[in-house]
Amino acid sequence: MIEMKKTTIYYNKKEKLKDPILLVGLPGIGNVGSLVGEHIKNETKAEKFGTLYSPYFPHQAIMLKNGGLRLISNRFYHFKNKKGRSILILIGDTQAGTPKGQYEVNEKIVRFFKSLGGRTVYTIGGYSAANQYIHNPRVFGVATNSKLRDTLGKYGIIFGQANGAVWGAAGIIPAFARKHRMDGACIMGETGMLEIDANAAKSVLEIMKKLLDIDINLGNLDKIKQETEKIIKDMEEASRAANEGPTGGHKENLSYIR
Amino acid sequence: MIEMKKTTIYYNKKEKLKDPILLVGLPGIGNVGSLVGEHIKNETKAEKFGTLYSPYFPHQAIMLKNGGLRLISNRFYHFKNKKGRSILILIGDTQAGTPKGQYEVNEKIVRFFKSLGGRTVYTIGGYSAANQYIHNPRVFGVATNSKLRDTLGKYGIIFGQANGAVWGAAGIIPAFARKHRMDGACIMGETGMLEIDANAAKSVLEIMKKLLDIDINLGNLDKIKQETEKIIKDMEEASRAANEGPTGGHKENLSYIR
Amino acid sequence: MIEMKKTTIYYNKKEKLKDPILLVGLPGIGNVGSLVGEHIKNETKAEKFGTLYSPYFPHQAIMLKNGGLRLISNRFYHFKNKKGRSILILIGDTQAGTPKGQYEVNEKIVRFFKSLGGRTVYTIGGYSAANQYIHNPRVFGVATNSKLRDTLGKYGIIFGQANGAVWGAAGIIPAFARKHRMDGACIMGETGMLEIDANAAKSVLEIMKKLLDIDINLGNLDKIKQETEKIIKDMEEASRAANEGPTGGHKENLSYIR
Amino acid sequence: MIEMKKTTIYYNKKEKLKDPILLVGLPGIGNVGSLVGEHIKNETKAEKFGTLYSPYFPHQAIMLKNGGLRLISNRFYHFKNKKGRSILILIGDTQAGTPKGQYEVNEKIVRFFKSLGGRTVYTIGGYSAANQYIHNPRVFGVATNSKLRDTLGKYGIIFGQANGAVWGAAGIIPAFARKHRMDGACIMGETGMLEIDANAAKSVLEIMKKLLDIDINLGNLDKIKQETEKIIKDMEEASRAANEGPTGGHKENLSYIR
Repeated sequence: MIEMKKTTIYYNKKEKLKDPILLVGLPGIGNVGSLVGEHIKNETKAEKFGTLYSPYFPHQAIMLKNGGLRLISNRFYHFKNKKGRSILILIGDTQAGTPKGQYEVNEKIVRFFKSLGGRTVYTIGGYSAANQYIHNPRVFGVATNSKLRDTLGKYGIIFGQANGAVWGAAGIIPAFARKHRMDGACIMGETGMLEIDANAAKSVLEIMKKLLDIDINLGNLDKIKQETEKIIKDMEEASRAANEGPTGGHKENLSYIR
Repeated sequence: MIEMKKTTIYYNKKEKLKDPILLVGLPGIGNVGSLVGEHIKNETKAEKFGTLYSPYFPHQAIMLKNGGLRLISNRFYHFKNKKGRSILILIGDTQAGTPKGQYEVNEKIVRFFKSLGGRTVYTIGGYSAANQYIHNPRVFGVATNSKLRDTLGKYGIIFGQANGAVWGAAGIIPAFARKHRMDGACIMGETGMLEIDANAAKSVLEIMKKLLDIDINLGNLDKIKQETEKIIKDMEEASRAANEGPTGGHKENLSYIR
Repeated sequence: MIEMKKTTIYYNKKEKLKDPILLVGLPGIGNVGSLVGEHIKNETKAEKFGTLYSPYFPHQAIMLKNGGLRLISNRFYHFKNKKGRSILILIGDTQAGTPKGQYEVNEKIVRFFKSLGGRTVYTIGGYSAANQYIHNPRVFGVATNSKLRDTLGKYGIIFGQANGAVWGAAGIIPAFARKHRMDGACIMGETGMLEIDANAAKSVLEIMKKLLDIDINLGNLDKIKQETEKIIKDMEEASRAANEGPTGGHKENLSYIR
Repeated sequence: MIEMKKTTIYYNKKEKLKDPILLVGLPGIGNVGSLVGEHIKNETKAEKFGTLYSPYFPHQAIMLKNGGLRLISNRFYHFKNKKGRSILILIGDTQAGTPKGQYEVNEKIVRFFKSLGGRTVYTIGGYSAANQYIHNPRVFGVATNSKLRDTLGKYGIIFGQANGAVWGAAGIIPAFARKHRMDGACIMGETGMLEIDANAAKSVLEIMKKLLDIDINLGNLDKIKQETEKIIKDMEEASRAANEGPTGGHKENLSYIR
């Protein structure tokens, strides 16, 4: 039965998954999660598998280019990697807006995935340690057990150096996964200053490509990265010129890129 | 049983409807929805059909001119068009104040209408693309399927040009209608700058008159439109004079009309 | 069973009431409701009848002078008027902090009173029409039916002149009462500018004394009124002097009394 | 069954307690509660007994030094005092963020403790009466009955002098305890100005050491206290110098320590 006032996942295409991995790429810091999730979905031509609606999402409908409309949502996409293993990607327009909503929606996601036979969850996020552009972003991780940390460490994910708290789905989905006796890790691209950080996303994607054993092209991200770096360089030079100029001036923080 | 702490619809007059259309005209951008809904209700002398109360509405009672009081509410009115088809208008003092309230109240509205045998829902809103007064407002739409878009397009509603998100009942009622296998469209008068935009409402009403096959007089709206346009013109001239005057001055944005 | 996480009313002393009237005097505009409720409770030596706790109240415990503590609450007090009729007064530290809380708590109050055999509810509030001190406050009312308006009008309560919305318990308790087929009225002392307006409360008390047929002394309120009026007079003179002084100056709005 | 979307307490080690006392040391004013709770837990090498998760806590996972992560929580620790009596300490990262959450979480704590056979609850907080550093903090209390006040008074806790409201767990846990027919007291170190007031915590700890009949070392707190006092003294001297200097200047309020 349709019931829009409860958090609900609807199947778009019900099919049997093979030992699935869940990859969560939702909006957040630097939009690293969304960029990674959307990119893998597009490159692998993953098929829509399920849709999640929630009264904890904003009360919005999105207008579509064809004159249609759709309710704001999170969406699961499915594809199989080179070895035939199922990868389920979760992307979306938003995350729940209150703590209570976050607990309810993320519990729903974790239970849904478990009911599909899933045992491993990776969430993607941004790790923002400084308010400056990161030219060579590292990839940090936290994971629910030492065996998983060892495995992920071999792919270049750095453990034990990030600190503080991870907000939202990126943090609490792996924490919930652990309570449900699944493996979970949060994989974070180093970022700063930028609202949409393609460079941080690229660093994560290079690792995910190997970790998930998938074929994806990173060419267009390279282009975005180059354009971003050019803008950053120009701004830094303009800022330096201003600071060294006859009137001195303050060194500008580049935060207006945000 | 009376239970004020739950979202509930009470019948004012229970009668059988004939293939009803729901027209939602609630407060929102430019108050276009309210203006359209109230005007059609008044012109057609529609009768009160039902009243919706909700704990997600503000905790207010409205004082009446006769010394009475009534709880803040949304209200359904019923009339029949020229062909004898039932039109149900939903107007009200407010919309729910939180996402959760919006999902609950609008789900209640859609289910109630479906239980009455309804299959088509139109919501009225304002579409604000620029912060300036719109002299000749267009009417934009989004609709749940291409057949409905074709039909509405013939009445002059423009599809595929509006973008972004529709907040509140205007957006999520058609989206919910679709999930409940009904037709739904959001019809939006182009507006800007004004809190109450009679001009945008008039553009929508001219279309609704034909679409709903109803007899309504738009004369008093013409008068409001003329008065509004005169005020706008005077302000624009005053603003121009100031900008061209001896002291120069900034070109004033007219947003204080809001 | 004790369950602090739900809105609950506990009996302090269970006794049979005689055709009870509920008088609601809770915090609000000018604190008129609290002043009237507390004064009648004190003057009539009413006995504690019940206590209402709610998770929609602030999460506070009040420290007592004897070193004890009590949870923030609303409290019912009972006494009988000259004719032996039961009057139930509701006073308290707070009102619920959200719309949802207001609907839940006030529905609980109305149902509780109905279960005691009650048929008539009066809520006391302040009516703030202007931001200036009111020397001779009028008493305005709204009521659920014309018969009640006629009755209350004889006591000097003015109907049909107040307009706008009444927020909180003062407004929605009578509105709920009507839905539960009881009589209800909101009685409002005219106020402005003052956080605690003993003068407005006095005007209401003079009417309630006759309406409820009770013996209460208004002497100490007279004293507060005189002191307040003296302060107001001094301030007005100081303000006038400043405005007429050599440096001119702006006429001060006395809102810092708030 | 695991259900992260409800407030739940999980046992880490289920063992029989002996006439337990609950000591609540959660974040709050001056962090006195946390400092006292953590210190006693560390000094007594108390063992983790249970963990409380709640959707009313922030939606955060904490990153650990070993590369792991854990959900934000409150945690019970157990040890036995010199006489073999069970002491249960509740510490944590946070308190619930809304009134409704506070009522639900604290009711859960009180019921859990009662189900373990508990009869006495002490909560620790800070009492902030002035915005200045307190060199010799007193310890104030409120308690649910006069017998308990007499007992606690003998340990130097001052009753009947604190006034106002106690927010959060420190205040409503003893108030709930009383409703559940248990003894409860809130014990508050006098504080001001400092976000983390080791000095106020030390005053409370000196009393708790005797009251709970436990062996704890206060040496490291003494060191923190001395360092804090030195900073305060330097600041006061700098402030005095500025005020007496040639340009006069305002006496600085030291609130930037906050």
